[in-house]
Order: sequence, then structure tokens, then C-alpha cells
Amino acid sequence: MGLKTKAEYIESLREMNPVVYMFGEKITNVVDNPRIRAGIESTASTYEVAELDEFRDLVITHSPLIDEPVNRFCLPPESIEDLVARVKLNRKLGSWVGTCHQRCTGLDCLSTLSIVTYDVDQKHGTSYNKNFVNFLKYMQKNDLTANAGVTDVKGDRSLGPKAQADEDMYVRVVEKRDDGIVVRGAKVHQTGSLSSHEIIVLPTRAMKPEDKDYAVAFAIPSDAPGLIHVVGRSSLDTRELDGCDTGNMRYSKYCPTLIFNDVFVPWDRVFLCGESEFAVDMVIKFSSFHRQSHGGCKAGKIDCMVGTALTLMDYNGTSKAGHHKQKVIDMIHRAETLYGCCLASSYEGNEQPSGTYFIDTVLANASKIHEGKEMAEATRLMIDVCGGFVADLPSDKDFENPEIGGMLKKYLKAKEGIPVENRIKMFRLAEKLAMESADTISDIHGGGSPEAHRVTIFRESDTKSKIKRAKRLAGIED
Amino acid sequence: MGLKTKAEYIESLREMNPVVYMFGEKITNVVDNPRIRAGIESTASTYEVAELDEFRDLVITHSPLIDEPVNRFCLPPESIEDLVARVKLNRKLGSWVGTCHQRCTGLDCLSTLSIVTYDVDQKHGTSYNKNFVNFLKYMQKNDLTANAGVTDVKGDRSLGPKAQADEDMYVRVVEKRDDGIVVRGAKVHQTGSLSSHEIIVLPTRAMKPEDKDYAVAFAIPSDAPGLIHVVGRSSLDTRELDGCDTGNMRYSKYCPTLIFNDVFVPWDRVFLCGESEFAVDMVIKFSSFHRQSHGGCKAGKIDCMVGTALTLMDYNGTSKAGHHKQKVIDMIHRAETLYGCCLASSYEGNEQPSGTYFIDTVLANASKIHEGKEMAEATRLMIDVCGGFVADLPSDKDFENPEIGGMLKKYLKAKEGIPVENRIKMFRLAEKLAMESADTISDIHGGGSPEAHRVTIFRESDTKSKIKRAKRLAGIED
Amino acid sequence: MGLKTKAEYIESLREMNPVVYMFGEKITNVVDNPRIRAGIESTASTYEVAELDEFRDLVITHSPLIDEPVNRFCLPPESIEDLVARVKLNRKLGSWVGTCHQRCTGLDCLSTLSIVTYDVDQKHGTSYNKNFVNFLKYMQKNDLTANAGVTDVKGDRSLGPKAQADEDMYVRVVEKRDDGIVVRGAKVHQTGSLSSHEIIVLPTRAMKPEDKDYAVAFAIPSDAPGLIHVVGRSSLDTRELDGCDTGNMRYSKYCPTLIFNDVFVPWDRVFLCGESEFAVDMVIKFSSFHRQSHGGCKAGKIDCMVGTALTLMDYNGTSKAGHHKQKVIDMIHRAETLYGCCLASSYEGNEQPSGTYFIDTVLANASKIHEGKEMAEATRLMIDVCGGFVADLPSDKDFENPEIGGMLKKYLKAKEGIPVENRIKMFRLAEKLAMESADTISDIHGGGSPEAHRVTIFRESDTKSKIKRAKRLAGIED
Amino acid sequence: MGLKTKAEYIESLREMNPVVYMFGEKITNVVDNPRIRAGIESTASTYEVAELDEFRDLVITHSPLIDEPVNRFCLPPESIEDLVARVKLNRKLGSWVGTCHQRCTGLDCLSTLSIVTYDVDQKHGTSYNKNFVNFLKYMQKNDLTANAGVTDVKGDRSLGPKAQADEDMYVRVVEKRDDGIVVRGAKVHQTGSLSSHEIIVLPTRAMKPEDKDYAVAFAIPSDAPGLIHVVGRSSLDTRELDGCDTGNMRYSKYCPTLIFNDVFVPWDRVFLCGESEFAVDMVIKFSSFHRQSHGGCKAGKIDCMVGTALTLMDYNGTSKAGHHKQKVIDMIHRAETLYGCCLASSYEGNEQPSGTYFIDTVLANASKIHEGKEMAEATRLMIDVCGGFVADLPSDKDFENPEIGGMLKKYLKAKEGIPVENRIKMFRLAEKLAMESADTISDIHGGGSPEAHRVTIFRESDTKSKIKRAKRLAGIED
Repeated sequence: MGLKTKAEYIESLREMNPVVYMFGEKITNVVDNPRIRAGIESTASTYEVAELDEFRDLVITHSPLIDEPVNRFCLPPESIEDLVARVKLNRKLGSWVGTCHQRCTGLDCLSTLSIVTYDVDQKHGTSYNKNFVNFLKYMQKNDLTANAGVTDVKGDRSLGPKAQADEDMYVRVVEKRDDGIVVRGAKVHQTGSLSSHEIIVLPTRAMKPEDKDYAVAFAIPSDAPGLIHVVGRSSLDTRELDGCDTGNMRYSKYCPTLIFNDVFVPWDRVFLCGESEFAVDMVIKFSSFHRQSHGGCKAGKIDCMVGTALTLMDYNGTSKAGHHKQKVIDMIHRAETLYGCCLASSYEGNEQPSGTYFIDTVLANASKIHEGKEMAEATRLMIDVCGGFVADLPSDKDFENPEIGGMLKKYLKAKEGIPVENRIKMFRLAEKLAMESADTISDIHGGGSPEAHRVTIFRESDTKSKIKRAKRLAGIED
Repeated sequence: MGLKTKAEYIESLREMNPVVYMFGEKITNVVDNPRIRAGIESTASTYEVAELDEFRDLVITHSPLIDEPVNRFCLPPESIEDLVARVKLNRKLGSWVGTCHQRCTGLDCLSTLSIVTYDVDQKHGTSYNKNFVNFLKYMQKNDLTANAGVTDVKGDRSLGPKAQADEDMYVRVVEKRDDGIVVRGAKVHQTGSLSSHEIIVLPTRAMKPEDKDYAVAFAIPSDAPGLIHVVGRSSLDTRELDGCDTGNMRYSKYCPTLIFNDVFVPWDRVFLCGESEFAVDMVIKFSSFHRQSHGGCKAGKIDCMVGTALTLMDYNGTSKAGHHKQKVIDMIHRAETLYGCCLASSYEGNEQPSGTYFIDTVLANASKIHEGKEMAEATRLMIDVCGGFVADLPSDKDFENPEIGGMLKKYLKAKEGIPVENRIKMFRLAEKLAMESADTISDIHGGGSPEAHRVTIFRESDTKSKIKRAKRLAGIED
Repeated sequence: MGLKTKAEYIESLREMNPVVYMFGEKITNVVDNPRIRAGIESTASTYEVAELDEFRDLVITHSPLIDEPVNRFCLPPESIEDLVARVKLNRKLGSWVGTCHQRCTGLDCLSTLSIVTYDVDQKHGTSYNKNFVNFLKYMQKNDLTANAGVTDVKGDRSLGPKAQADEDMYVRVVEKRDDGIVVRGAKVHQTGSLSSHEIIVLPTRAMKPEDKDYAVAFAIPSDAPGLIHVVGRSSLDTRELDGCDTGNMRYSKYCPTLIFNDVFVPWDRVFLCGESEFAVDMVIKFSSFHRQSHGGCKAGKIDCMVGTALTLMDYNGTSKAGHHKQKVIDMIHRAETLYGCCLASSYEGNEQPSGTYFIDTVLANASKIHEGKEMAEATRLMIDVCGGFVADLPSDKDFENPEIGGMLKKYLKAKEGIPVENRIKMFRLAEKLAMESADTISDIHGGGSPEAHRVTIFRESDTKSKIKRAKRLAGIED
Repeated sequence: MGLKTKAEYIESLREMNPVVYMFGEKITNVVDNPRIRAGIESTASTYEVAELDEFRDLVITHSPLIDEPVNRFCLPPESIEDLVARVKLNRKLGSWVGTCHQRCTGLDCLSTLSIVTYDVDQKHGTSYNKNFVNFLKYMQKNDLTANAGVTDVKGDRSLGPKAQADEDMYVRVVEKRDDGIVVRGAKVHQTGSLSSHEIIVLPTRAMKPEDKDYAVAFAIPSDAPGLIHVVGRSSLDTRELDGCDTGNMRYSKYCPTLIFNDVFVPWDRVFLCGESEFAVDMVIKFSSFHRQSHGGCKAGKIDCMVGTALTLMDYNGTSKAGHHKQKVIDMIHRAETLYGCCLASSYEGNEQPSGTYFIDTVLANASKIHEGKEMAEATRLMIDVCGGFVADLPSDKDFENPEIGGMLKKYLKAKEGIPVENRIKMFRLAEKLAMESADTISDIHGGGSPEAHRVTIFRESDTKSKIKRAKRLAGIED
């Protein structure tokens, strides 16, 4: 037990036996499937960097709970410093992997549960917090990765859970037994579910009293019986399978749909079950934490995109083009905006009754609103600066073909002194950064839809004081 | 001879023998390669719609040159009406294929040559226009498709053609013979080169006197000896090869790199050779025409995206969400802006000395500047409205798998009465519209870089009259 | 009778006796009040430019109705050419006056009435069109200016006309007499009401059957008994009164509130009275025409702003700053976008049953949506380029003060060879262009609120065909 | 001595005798001039709020230097907490006054000098820091307000200080005497110079060795002999003079040009004199601090604008209009973005060698870039939501006029239960917030031009590490 090395982490996944489908086929060796492995490598980096000087102090922290060093992704924030470290670590990791490292959602769940289970128990006299604390100890002692199962399929969006034609459109409790509960439903966009040891399920929306069967939170191993991972397609998914033209030579991302086909959950792994009025607390806390996680890591992804743009400006011979520099500045500005709002959201956080710290939701959502719009713009700017080969670069197999490879390399050569291979690699990376659907669409929909972020900042803002100030200046008394 | 049917068009391609590589392998049966065929189908639609009531009057026109009905894509505009019809046809076709139909660049070349060869002859006493007119007759009589070979590889962008370390970074004349010229170099981003019978090459930039070997324009068959097509990768390129998850069930796009490995061009196919001061005219005329072609067809692509968004709003049960409707309005607004500026650019066109009509360049470039920024925004809005499955929908093979297909369909079902298969298909189309690199990157780089469009509207605007007006109001006399 | 010279126009206003208040005082000599006069001068320019070569062909046209030459602002469009000329003339005039010339709203009303009165008569057997044609002859024969009385005060916006606590919140018929009707209410933001001979009143919104007293259209002289003009404040309104620091040395704009305090309208001046279902036609036709008028004249205003920016770049010594040039390009782009969409809206117009031509509403509203957002951006860019003295330039009186004038001129001097007086004048013009509330707020609210423009393009777009196209590509049959 | 009350502050200004011109006339009673007084009232609020519970803890702090409580605007930041308090206080004050409180620039100067004079002394063995500390004690003990004299007139912007035709285009030392120096030049956009006891002058740009006479920093009383304040015009400046239609019933802003007509500065008030390489440090430190001050107070101004918009939505009856709510959210989002980046900039600050704390410049400038663009957008949104009367509301004098006042009030009435006077006042406030040039243009040019902010974030970003990250992922070693 204790902190895992990268090798131990991968070995630990090898010992699990999840049920997985991809492209219509059952996958038995998950860890060595090149596509899933590229995602596992991303998460593995959260273990690996713990050994690097540049990262260690951010990644390794101490858990009072088990009185041992733990990876930060296993520690619900216990101070403002912890909240701040989340953002800084996510930015550094985002830049390190150039995609999603997939371990933030687990921490976002742990942080949420650490706050809300306490509050539920206070009101209802339940013992969810005890369950949670035991689960947390287990996570920390074994340095495990967890995945957040939050987004339900939702069926007809104009109807609530109970009003759906098919009652399973939101994950629900179909049976309560002495030893636990049985749940059914599906959670979608489950980035990293196969890179995770545990799946933590939370409600995806506020629930009404009649929806109490849907007000459920729990944790199960990612290979629990009845759980099925169906890895969805993404735009560049065959690149890793073909081992060619991957662009990002190290990391990638995949997003399964997760089907809960009557899965059993023992009572000591249940963190909410029927207290419907707390569903909204769970989803607000989780989504605020997760929107803020995005702000850090997406700033880091822009850092990568800035590096890509600057490198190709150098390679192409356009480093002195003023308009290119302006576009890079626009990219940097977007990164710093995401980052600044998220940092502020941490620094302005506060202690919750359980002792865990929570962030400022308005500032976290302010960051996410920018992400939902500005990541697309940063990407567009990168493409503009890099040039048209982001769209249609020949394959590495073409470059290796003896009949045409030489000619292709002759014509792809740009600035003297830069090996053509480097320019080719950099264009390929730009393509991956710009066109990987698993990444770019999470900029928009990750952490809830853009409209959700907007509604949140309105609801959480103190509009009354703003009205009061305006009336005072206008000379209106009321 | 005469107008070709779709079947005749495809048959005519089957008779050609271009040298083609893709994914490192030589392709011998181009027409039946599923990926290339999806692109050929797009171009084929320009033949097929000629038989549809809805399109016929726009597509079929009359050529005074051969006194026969011709496809509009073979007729340089001879009136304002022709200029307007270009835009309307491109919008309708863009919406019809949901991608690039690939036949506009040929018309843009023909239109350019019809103007500039005349002007060159007037100054230099050459006979390029005669060559061109004969070539045009051949195109019209056989209802052929041509592809524009314009964008050179360019090497180090900070250096001109002659100053490059490797002299072949722009296509150039390496030998002049009695019967013709020999050219060497490469043209990139050659959308549709294998859907075309002819490749028309124009210079890609202004040339100085010392660059005269690079001031060359000509046409050759797409299977001319020495010509090599290397089909580049695009984000969803294996979908057509696998025959699965294509999204757009009918059409796609591919973009080869075209290598001119010492290709012979007979003199009667040469349209410019050494008159370096006319290179800039060619590129400005071509790029203006082509930027305007984009405005039409990309407005049509947005029409498709609007249709996709509205359909998924219906299927998802979000048709009444005000913020979704606002986003659709934002999409429509972008389509109409591209279209409006392009239409105006046609209506404000004028006759050139050769009798061919040219568009208003400021308005055409105004449209393209919007495209370069706003197509990405329209795409982002579509993704936002459609939902997260644009990113990671399971494969059709998963839906067909007997073990999980039923469950997947259960959970993907949304609004009552809508077959789940339709919702799945519509998400898949949304993915194709949003994430096909061959399309989305052409929004940015097609028709020259965004900076080129900006420089053009400044250079072509009458800034002196604007200054004069301001000074008059300020009371300044000078 | 016949075309008026500028002098005759001003003289004709002098003969009128409107009831006017400004700053709490009754104004008896309207024409010589410096503030109102600056607005009258703007409208006078529509008479004056008829004598300039550069404008004549656009301004003077022929009326078949009276078989005489008339000013274009008196002629409902009878052809596509007329629709196009509207836009071109408005752009040139916008640039000429650098503010609002105030004569477009009259034409927009005449055009609307020329279409809708005919349609009403067709349905109801009324004789509104005859009334209108006689009124139009009178306008044309005397070369008169009319003002559009459209925007009602509206009371509580969540309630319709009839549901208001005070029934006079929309102009309504309070009495029907044998010789005419008596109307009560108020119309606001009545730009140019004192520069006009006639006030033409139209409904401001769709009306339900119960609102029939509010479905009223008519024309009355601007000095009709019971009509009260209250000139509202605008940001720079005391400048003209003080005769100092006006910025625009020639022209300005003012916007009265117009109170109809039981005003009598003879029957032959009534164009709608109770046919409530036609109110919506009137407001849609008028607002579409007027939104398009904006597109022309505001493009012209940006032309002035571009001229101002380029001149101050020259004076300040920043002509070579790349980022300044980029900002000017952004300004030009906005002007051309407004203009292009409006031109297209004219070219795509169509003949109405009455023989009058109407524009394409989607394209006209597409232009206006840009105006509502982008004029503010163009203004911001101009301020950025010009420099901080747009905010706080000392007064002309300071420059003339013998104790400090010399020092101020010493320190305001910039580029050698440019008289400091010119730089001062140009900063003052920039201030007027940027900070005149009467102008800048009309960019947003003129022609109806931004939301109205958005709703219109959605309603008027053919969304069904877009859905059909998307379904075809997705392979969905229904 | 010690903290001043508001009354004492105003009394202290009354004892000064600055030379002031406005509208061409010499102003002798500055404090009672209504226009200047409205600005003084803004600054007075920084004294007044010290007595309010809501503000006290933010405003009053302790100075170790004099071991007494001091106003925060007299204390260079000695900790991260101080840096954070700056931002929070500025936001609260911005919202409190709805304009510029004018006391931040003094603190920004004090903070800058507290850092840089120390560094200069370290290198040159000078005693500027001692001079500064004594000056700071004086400021603190007397609770004084200082104004930043930074922006020079600059002459021809393409030339440096020494290269100008007139050597006085940047403030310079024209004479060095035993007892001090004599300076000449002008500083512009001197917001609050007459609300200040002291003027602190810093260089406005980097200086080269040949510019050493321009590398000068010092402090003088605002009524020092030779110093001339010329109060510039702003858009609504006559409103306060007329005592009518002011909109903001309490506060305003004015911006003089400040002429240094051979002003004597004793040596103990000199903080830099010839050490040209430190000019850049002064301007970077000052501008970073000041750009951050903006982020706080402008967020507060948006708070006021949000309050205004929400109040008018209520009064107009549009509170339930979805698009209005969306626009308010867009406003809030902008406020939080400015604020978030500024807070982060403080939290990420660091201690300088002198012991004073400095902010993170990238984040401070990221905030300012947003301000330069987004304040205009927030303003546009407020106007859109409020309605057209922001442009042209009749004067209070009209509402008071017995002949028309009743009618005007009848027609301006909207929602039942809201006194019409309140709606009128709120429209008037909206006009002030939107159209006061002294405020809105400082959004763009305050703290240096937008381009300066952009250049700063590029220069201060660690682009090398971004390039390194990208190359690692692309598999490039170098």
C-alpha cells in the first residue's frame, strides 16, 4: 500500500476484469488495447509526475486521515492552499499531457461527498459520511483513481426522471436489499472509466420528492458485475489502433457509455439513497468543482497549443509576422483568463461544516463560461497560425514509402536547419490538439452545458446589493 | 459529348489512370475506393442535380462559345446574373452535400483565366487567351470538372520563390522545349484532384521579375505523367474505409498533396509563362472568386447544421428551450451574413476587358473574413445545442451487437415517437459536420489565410474618400 | 412647387409653428435654435446634395405619379434599382453628415403605406390607398420631409395596449367624427420631427382584435394643433447651444418625444383605422425598411470614423503601427458587412401587389443585428486608435484663452507639418462620433430592439428546408 | 493629524490654491465648482466609507512606518492580504460611486516608488528611497490623496523623447539647482488632480541613455507654482454645472491636462533623476498596479450597471424576458472576469527586495485586456436592456414645467406601483453610466493603450516552457 508508481498503477488495472465493448467487439485485454492504453497513459502521468522535481510538491500531500503521504487526487481540499494547488496542478498536467488526464473527476466526487454526506447526516441522522470516510481511506491507502458517473442519458429533456416513458433514463434504485441496493440506468461521457479503479455515482440534477429513487450516490469497482463500458467513437480513434499518425505521441482520451445493468452496491458503499432534497447540493458542488478543474487543465492545453503555434511559426518562417504574434497573444490571454478566474475561485473558497473546503462558485463558473466559448477560438487561432497542413497532412506511412517518401519530405521542408521530420510531427500534434473530438467537445459540454454555467452565476450573484447601489446613485429610496 | 449524367461522369473518371497514394499504399482503383468515392460523389452531385427541378435552372445555362447548354461550373460569368447564380448555386449545393462539392475551384480558375489571359495578350501580344478559349471549349463540350492547383508548399515563408534554399518550393518551369514546358514543384490542399479530369495551375502569389520561372499557368489532365496525388489524412478518414459511422451517408471530402515530378505541358495548354507582373492579377482574381465561392457553399453548410440542430432539439425534447433557439438564430445569422456579402459582391460586379464579369473584391473578402471566424462559432453552437454525444457516440457496430445493442438503443431513446435510430443517425451527422478536418479547416485556410482577406479589404477600400469626408466635418481644409 | 433647394427647405420650415419645449422652456424660433438647427442642417443636406455631381443621379429620380423629377426620399421603390439606390444613397449621406440625416424614416413610412394600404383596401374595400396616393402626390410635388411616428411609450411592457392601466400608452383613436378622427398618446425617439413637414404615424406592434382603436395610421403636419414636441437631452446637446466644441462642425441630431394631445386628423389623411390584423404588416414592413436604411447610413458613419482614425494616425505619428492598421481593417469590415447585407436585401427584393417593391427581410435584419453589436465595437476601435484625448480635450475656449492657449497648443502639437488646430479639430470630431448619445444609442435601439431583429430572421427563414436537407444526409426518411 | 473625515478632507482642499482653467476661464473656487466638486465627492467617499461598517475593515489598515491606523490608499502593499484588499476595496468603491473614485492612482504610485526607489539606490547608491519614505510618512500622517502624473503628451508617437522637434513633449529636467530641479512638460488625462493634495510624477515609458533628462520622478503639491490644471471637456460636463440631469446624483469625474511650466521640485521630493534604465521599471510597475486597480473598480461599475438594468427591467415590465436575463448574465460574467483575474493577480503576488509586494503582471494585464473590450460590451448590453430613453430622455426641467410636466410623467409611467419619478431617475443614471466620456474612454485608454496590455502578457509569459511541452508531446527532441 501507499503511493503507487506508474508501473504499479498500470499493473493494478491489469488485475481488473471490466466488461468492455468497442467498435462492436468485446475487449478482453483493456490495458494493452492501444486506444484505451493511450488514455490510461494520461492518467498514469498523475502517478509518474509524483516522482519529478517539477511536480512533486504539488502532487504529493499529506492525509491527516491516514497520516500518510497521498496523491493530491485522493485528498478532498482541507485548506485554501489545497484548493489553489488543484488549479495549479491541473494546469501543469494539462500542459504535460496535452489532453485530459482523467483523474480530476474522481477528486471532484470525493470533495463533493466529503461535504454533502456530512450535511445529509446532520439532517437525517444517516451514516453516509462514515461510509464515505471509510471509502476515502481505502482510496488513499491504495492510491486509487476514481471516475465520476454523473451525466445520465436523460431521455426526453423536457421531462423529469419520474415522468419519462422509460423509468431508467436516470440511474435509479430498482431494489433495496438487506445487504445493499441494486441500481439500473446509464451514465454517459464517462471519460477514463477504464483508467479508474472505482466508479463514483452522483445524481445529475436536482430531484423532487417523487424522484427519490433517483437520488442515489455510491461507489463501485469499475469491474463490478453488471457494469458495461461501451467505448464511444471519437474523431481520431483509429490512429492509436493503427499505431500511426497519432500526433500526440504519448497520450489520448476515450469516453465510454456506462451501462448499469442491475448492479449491486453494498450499503457501506452507498452515500445517498432517497434524500432527494440533497441531490441538488451534490450536483452543484460536483459541477462547481469540476468546472474549476477544467479551467486549470484547459489553460494547460492552451499552453500546449501556444507552444505548438510558436514552434510552427519558427519552422514555417513566420515568427516575425505581426498578425501571427497577435493571435498567439489572443491564445495566451484565453489561457490566463481561465486560470485567473479559477485561481480566484480557490483563493476565495471557504470551509464547509464537514471541514472540507469549497470554492467560489461564481468565479468557477465564470471561468467555465469562457472555456465553453474560448477554447474553440483558441483552437481556431492555433490552426490559423500553424497553416493548412493541420487538415490534410499525408500519413507517416506515406512519408515512409520509398517511392514517394523522399519527395514528400523534400516538399514539406521549410526553414533551413529544421529537420523536416520535426515539422511533420508538429503539424500532426496540431491536428490532434485541434481535431480530437473527445477533447474539443468536452470544452463545451464538460461539467454541464454552457447554459448551466450561466444560470449558476446569475443565481449565485448578489443581485440585490447591485440594485441597492444603483438606486442609491439614482437617488431612489425604497 | 454534351452534358454528362452522374453515371457518365463517374464512368469518365474510371477511364483515367492517375498515380495515387494513400496511407502509404498505391491506389489503383480510385473510383471504387470508398474514401475517395465519397468525395467523387460530392462532385457527382453537381451533375446529378442538373436533372432535378429544384436545381435545373440554376445549374444548366447556355454557352455562346459552343452554342450548347452547359453546366454552370464550365461557364466563366458573362453577366451579373451569372455572378449571382454562382452564389445561389453554391449555397444550394452546400446544403445538398453538407460538405465541399469540389467543383467550384475549377470554375474559379476558368473565370480568372478568361479575364487575365486576355489582359496579358493585350500587353504582350501573346496568345494565351486563344489557348484558354480552346481549352474552355473542350471543358464545356465534355462537361468536365477541373481542379485548381494554386497553393504551393512555399518552403520558408519569409523568403520569396527564388530565394529558397530549394528552388522547387513553388511550381516552376524547369525546361522550355519546342513542344511545351516541363514543370516541377508541389501544390497542396488539392481538394478534389481525383474527382477532376483536369488540373489547372495558377501562381499562388505576386511574383517579382526575378521569379519569372514561377509565373506560370497551365492545365493538364489529372493523370498526366509525372503527376502524383498523395491523399492526406483527415480526422474521420477511416470511417468511409470501414463503411461505418460515416455520419454523412452520402458525401465526403479528401485533400491530396499534388507533386509535379517534371510534368510536361504542351504549349497550347500554357496560359502564362514568364510574364511575372501578371501573377498577382491571377492570384487576386482567383482568390476573390474562390473566397466568394466559399461564402455561398459555407452558408449552405450552416443551413445543414441549423437543420441538424433543430432536429436534435426536437428529438431531445429541447425545442422550447429559449437559449437553444437563440443559438440557432446565431447560426442563421452567420449563414445570412456570408450569403448577403457574397450576393452583394456579385450584384456589384463589373465587366472586364475580356467580356467576362468580375465580382466586388471588398465584399467578397468581407464575407470570407466572417467565414474564417464564424464557421467555427456556428459549429460550436451546433455542438452546444445537439449535446455531448457529438463527441463519443458508440459505433454502429455496437448498436448492431446482439449483446449490447438493445441496451444501447434503450438508453439512447429520447422523445417518444422518434425512432432511436434516427436520433443516432442525427448525432452521427452532427459529428461529421463538426469534426471533419477536411471541411472545418478549409473554413479558415481555404482561399488563402485570414490575414490575406484582411489585407485585401484594406487595399481595395477607398480610404482617401473616407479621410476627405472626416476632414470636411471636422472643418479641416487641406 | 417642384424640387426644393436647401434654402427653400429651411424657409419652408420657418413658416411652420410647431409647439416645442426644450430644457423646460418653450422654443419659438425653431429654425434658429442652434441645437435644432444642427439637426435641420442634416436633413437639409438631402436637399443640398441634389445639386452636387457626386450625388445627383442617386438623389434625383422621376415620379410616374406626378411625372416630375422628385427627390428619392419621396418615392416608394418601384424597382430593384430603387431598392438598391436607397442603400447607396444612405451610405453616401451617412458619410457626408457623419450622423443621422433624418429623412429616411419618412421614405420608410411612404414605402410601407404604399404596400399595405393597397392590401387593406383589397380585403376591406376601404379607400386608404387613395388617401395615401393623394398624400404622396402632395409630398412629391412639394418635396417635403416626413417623420415616422412609430415607437409608442408602451407603459408596462408585459401588457398589451388594451390591458394597460392607462389606456393612452399606445396612440389610439379617442373619437371618430364625421370629418376625421381624434388621436391621443405619445411617440418617442422622434428623430427629426422638427426637421419634417409631416408626421406619419404607424402602429408599433401587432394588434389583436380588442386593440382595434390602436390600429391606426395617418399623417399630420408637424405643427398640427395638439401636437407637442419635447426635445430630449442628449450627451453633447449643450455644445451646439454654446456654439463651441461641437466636433462635427456642420451637423447633429436631436430626438423629441412627441405628445398627441387629442390631435385631429381629417379622414383623407387616415391610412388605417381599426383593421387590427394589418398592424403587424405595417410594423414589419416599416421596420424592415428602416432596419435596412440603418445599414446604409451607419456604414457611411463608419466610413467617417475610418477617415477620422486614419487622419489621427497620421497626425499622431502612428500610421505605421501594425495593430492600428488591424483595427482600421476591423472597422472597414464592419462597414462592409452592414452594407453588403443591405445591398443583398435590396437586390433580392420583390414586387408587392401594389406595385411597390419590398426588400428581403432576413438579409435586412441580418444587417441590423450586426449594427446593434458592431457599431459599438467600431466606435471602441476608433477611440483606441485615436487616443485618450477623445475623452477630455480642453475646450476651444481654453485654446483661445491668451494665458494658456499658447501652452496648450504647444503641448497638443504632434507630427511636424500638421497644424495643431487640425489635430484638435479631429479629436473633437472623434469625440462627437463616439459619444453623441443620440447617434450611438440609435445603433442599438433604432428600428426596434436587437431582440426584434433576431426573432425576425428566425421567423422569416425557411427552417423546414434546412431540416429536410439534414435528414437526407443523415439517412432519415420521414 | 491622523485619519481625515470627509469634511476635513474637503476643508483641506479648500486651503489649497491651484491654478485652474475650465471652458476658457480661470476657476478660483475649485471646491465649490459643481463640476469639479462632483469629482471631489468621489474621492471624498474614500474618506467617508472609512466610517461605514461595511467598508471599515477594508479601508482602514495599520502602517508600521508611522505605527498608526491609515487609509489603505496611503499604504504600499506589505503582504498578499494587502494586494487582495486593494482589489476588493476598489470593487466596492466602484460600485459605491458608479464612476472613478480617483484615489487609486496615488496608491499605485506610492507602491511603485516603494519598490523601485529601493532598487535604484541599491545600484546607484542614491538616496531616493529615503526621500520616498519621508514623503510616504507625510502622506500617511496627514491622510492625503495623491494623483499620478504619468501620461506625457508624447508629440510625434513615432519618435522618442529626445528626437522630438519640441524637446518638451515629455516632462523633463530643464535645470538642476543646489536646492532642487526645475521641470517642464505636460501630463494629460490627469483624473482627480484637483481632488489631490499631491501630484506624483513618473516616467511614461522606457528611456534610453540619451533620454536621461526625461528619466525623472518626483512629488509636488497640486498647487505648486508653475503648475496649471486645464480641466478638459467631457460628454456630460455641463450637467453638473447646470445642476440638472446629472444622472448620478452624487458623484462624477473630470480629467485635466496638467502643464508643468518650469516647476521647482526640492531635492527631497525627487525620486529618480537621470537613472534612465529604471524608467522602464517604474512604468511597468505603475501600469501593472494601475491596470489591476481598474479591474477592481470597473467590476464595481458593472455591478452598478447590472443593478440599473435589473431595476429598469422591473420598472419596464420586462423582468421575465429571457433575452434580457441573458444579457444581464453577460454583464455579470464580464464583471467577474475582471475581478477574478485581478484577485488572482494579487494572490499570486510576491515580495520585492524593498519588502513591498508586487502583483502578477500577466494576470493583471489579462484583466485589463478584457476591460478594454468588454466594458464597452457591458455598456451596450445595459443600454439594450434599459431601452431607448437612455438616449433622449427629456430634461428634469421639462418634467418640472407646469405646461408639459404632467403629460410627460403620464407617458413615462410604466409598471403600476412604481413612481414615474423613479423610472426617470433610473434612465438618467443609465445615461450617465453609458455616456460619460470621462469614464467610458478610460476603460479603453486608462492604464496605457490596449496594445500595451497585450505586449505585456506576451513578454511576461513563459513561452519557452510552452514550446518545450509541445515538443515533448510531438516527440521532438532538441
